[in-house]
Amino acid sequence: MKKIIIAGPRGKMGSEAIKLVQSQEDMRLVACIDRKNNGKKLADIAELPNLDVPIYEDAVECFSEIDADILIELTIPEQGYKHTKAAMEHGIRPVVGTTGFTEEQIDELSWLASERKIGCIIAPNFAIGAVLMMKFSQMAAQYFPDVDIIEKHHDNKLDAPSGTAVKTAEMIKESREYKKQGHADEKETYPGARGADYDGMRIHSVRLPGLVAHQEVIFGSPGQTLTIKHDSINRASFMEGIKLATDKVMEIQEVIYGLENVL
Amino acid sequence: MKKIIIAGPRGKMGSEAIKLVQSQEDMRLVACIDRKNNGKKLADIAELPNLDVPIYEDAVECFSEIDADILIELTIPEQGYKHTKAAMEHGIRPVVGTTGFTEEQIDELSWLASERKIGCIIAPNFAIGAVLMMKFSQMAAQYFPDVDIIEKHHDNKLDAPSGTAVKTAEMIKESREYKKQGHADEKETYPGARGADYDGMRIHSVRLPGLVAHQEVIFGSPGQTLTIKHDSINRASFMEGIKLATDKVMEIQEVIYGLENVL
Amino acid sequence: MKKIIIAGPRGKMGSEAIKLVQSQEDMRLVACIDRKNNGKKLADIAELPNLDVPIYEDAVECFSEIDADILIELTIPEQGYKHTKAAMEHGIRPVVGTTGFTEEQIDELSWLASERKIGCIIAPNFAIGAVLMMKFSQMAAQYFPDVDIIEKHHDNKLDAPSGTAVKTAEMIKESREYKKQGHADEKETYPGARGADYDGMRIHSVRLPGLVAHQEVIFGSPGQTLTIKHDSINRASFMEGIKLATDKVMEIQEVIYGLENVL
Amino acid sequence: MKKIIIAGPRGKMGSEAIKLVQSQEDMRLVACIDRKNNGKKLADIAELPNLDVPIYEDAVECFSEIDADILIELTIPEQGYKHTKAAMEHGIRPVVGTTGFTEEQIDELSWLASERKIGCIIAPNFAIGAVLMMKFSQMAAQYFPDVDIIEKHHDNKLDAPSGTAVKTAEMIKESREYKKQGHADEKETYPGARGADYDGMRIHSVRLPGLVAHQEVIFGSPGQTLTIKHDSINRASFMEGIKLATDKVMEIQEVIYGLENVL
Repeated sequence: MKKIIIAGPRGKMGSEAIKLVQSQEDMRLVACIDRKNNGKKLADIAELPNLDVPIYEDAVECFSEIDADILIELTIPEQGYKHTKAAMEHGIRPVVGTTGFTEEQIDELSWLASERKIGCIIAPNFAIGAVLMMKFSQMAAQYFPDVDIIEKHHDNKLDAPSGTAVKTAEMIKESREYKKQGHADEKETYPGARGADYDGMRIHSVRLPGLVAHQEVIFGSPGQTLTIKHDSINRASFMEGIKLATDKVMEIQEVIYGLENVL
Repeated sequence: MKKIIIAGPRGKMGSEAIKLVQSQEDMRLVACIDRKNNGKKLADIAELPNLDVPIYEDAVECFSEIDADILIELTIPEQGYKHTKAAMEHGIRPVVGTTGFTEEQIDELSWLASERKIGCIIAPNFAIGAVLMMKFSQMAAQYFPDVDIIEKHHDNKLDAPSGTAVKTAEMIKESREYKKQGHADEKETYPGARGADYDGMRIHSVRLPGLVAHQEVIFGSPGQTLTIKHDSINRASFMEGIKLATDKVMEIQEVIYGLENVL
Repeated sequence: MKKIIIAGPRGKMGSEAIKLVQSQEDMRLVACIDRKNNGKKLADIAELPNLDVPIYEDAVECFSEIDADILIELTIPEQGYKHTKAAMEHGIRPVVGTTGFTEEQIDELSWLASERKIGCIIAPNFAIGAVLMMKFSQMAAQYFPDVDIIEKHHDNKLDAPSGTAVKTAEMIKESREYKKQGHADEKETYPGARGADYDGMRIHSVRLPGLVAHQEVIFGSPGQTLTIKHDSINRASFMEGIKLATDKVMEIQEVIYGLENVL
Repeated sequence: MKKIIIAGPRGKMGSEAIKLVQSQEDMRLVACIDRKNNGKKLADIAELPNLDVPIYEDAVECFSEIDADILIELTIPEQGYKHTKAAMEHGIRPVVGTTGFTEEQIDELSWLASERKIGCIIAPNFAIGAVLMMKFSQMAAQYFPDVDIIEKHHDNKLDAPSGTAVKTAEMIKESREYKKQGHADEKETYPGARGADYDGMRIHSVRLPGLVAHQEVIFGSPGQTLTIKHDSINRASFMEGIKLATDKVMEIQEVIYGLENVL
């Protein structure tokens, strides 16, 4: 039975994480860390499930008083780093979905992990499907240097291409032999038609209402195409990855960065 | 039984058209018009099927000597226009896949059609699937103003977007209420990611080996998307359209331009 | 300004409909009909928005006291029929998403509509995208008799194929020339591989977690395929259709059954 | 420079292989083995390219007289086995696309390979994209036990599901934890709708004109789906795999069965 503390229980990810812990027979929620509601129980808060689980505002106090195995950290970078470090100092293994840790911070946590012989997993993306899509794309690019990425998101998204598309292109670049794709003399009669150029490959961003978060990576070679596609419709997609990380974090004595290194 | 003359029998379209005529019980090939091989039979030419059908270099001579109902015209614009006009003057109904007739030429043929009470069908695209894709897209755009077009072709194609994609966008524009799509503040971190802008909608061109000719039109609306997709792998796709046109051309006494107006 | 009454405000469809009315400048919510909460306001109910709008348990009382143009009916068949009939008798035009009215009931409502010169729209499916998919499929089947339907739903769905898939097949059957598809001598080495047979065409049902409600209709012809696909991720997809019906219902003096007859 | 002998030059695969060898700077065609045309040159045969390359009917004679590095074997099982064995006995490394060797034959070839310290690659499927699709599917199934396979082929295909679909399911089975998919109480109102059952997963076979050879493997998990798709439009798709095998076969001293073990 893994005893779990969740930091950020009222966020979108946090509330999914509570559901995850409740649904697993080998997990038990023992406390939450929140930036308000100190001393209350989850059951006292209207938006949280009716559980007799204590809430702490101070992470160190929580880790000192509560007997726990794992911290699932889902807050913001600054708080997240403090929680993660304090957890490790108290022998509690962090699974961190908070993005934005600096390299220095990760180095510091790595040193702490080897010092204390304790595991920690940090992942900017816990959707196993997205991580497999990127990993498979990197593998396929060894054989197929011609590749276009099409990512599709709801039309409230501000940036194009998406972070996942750029990360995918970076990973492909590592294994792909450089090639400037398309015909040497091709012409855009309407500018932008051929999409964004990233190291000679092409990225296209579709934005429409009714979409959530989708990406397909298409590899072409004479006579065939290979397509790897991920569709995500809500944050439930992250929970399988967090569950996997809670298993893995119990077995390691180091910091692992990126879910692709857990798979 | 429709008696057919084919102009351009040695071209890629022409050789498919010969196969079409041979496969239909109610069609018979009675002559071909070619820019060489005058006086020979199809059976005399290595690359053509073993048929006892005469070849003419001179279209007028062919139309005078041969009793025919329909000319399937698959050559080049200049020759094609002459063939089409001469056919109508001899009471033979043209089905024309040759592109590039001018507006004046089409007006002239329309006048001739009403004068002689004879039908003629001219279509730049005989793939019924592509024509239906455009027609359905135009219909859907009445209800869904948010639309992205993704067209995918082999990487030997020079122009982007494809002619079909531009034609689709033009047809959508006629029924769609103008809207500048995407978030008002969206930013391209890699230029071109959001594709080409056509009247506020977006067009994306994928070019990869292993592709032939593909297009999908995606309409988005809160909670749903509707996608209309056409995949073409070879010229056989044009034959259903030519067959349809040979039926229709017998029933009309005017020039119809565009297969969409036959469907 | 259309004055709207919603029946079934606490259901999934009803709560979306309230959001719809709130978002439209030319609509105003004037009352709700609920099977409890008589005499309260929407603002009194925790799960409903903070609106000063009265709730009635008795539909006739509601229609007598409240000045309204349209009833959006989203309850259950038995109640729904009573509400619809009573609304028309009070000069209020119904837009009905409740399924399961009998033919006799629809006849009765049609008679009432012509008697009172009042419109009524009843639609088992208000997702415009789904309705267009079916309509386009019916149109395409005139030219392409070879068609497979693949529908994909979450794995909690009990029935296969889905109601939409069967309805699509029925509509296709009306325009398609009968054909037993596939090779005359084809063999299933694993039974069921070729899917369900409906009038010679094939239907395939995919059930997986992570899916919501999706369908693609694939037409094949030598050298080409045409695919019409609808993806629905939540009930927001019905609201465009309900909005369209509220416009249309004001202009008609009959009962229209099926959103396809409004489009 | 790799000196290549091709067995089966007049077959569909063989003629593609000749084109492959001609297009590669580091390969040279030195002979062909054919069941007729002994003593002629390729240039003497109308359907073959105009090359001054000798044709042998007897493989042993060919291997004795011609200095070669690699045999590309593309005939039928019985002949193919004899050619493969004789090649190895003459120090020529076989790349074999012929399917249907028995286990005993493969054992015999393996013994010969270790005896003679010579490589041999046998692959029933040389399309790298198809092999990657199967490999990635096997990897993904570790994390996602819910999977449906949809394969789509032209309607002249006799067997359903396709060999590739069954092979994919077998490979998935090796890594997937057994699960009977779908709802426990699901009902088929039209039999076959849910496809074929293979170890609790589902396989669907689409057959339509206009299709060539396509397969998608869809993994579902709460909130997300991961799809791996391969589209093949002609035999050119096999050539990348044969090229890869000709490189690899020079480096090994064993028999490798299956392109997946080369990648």
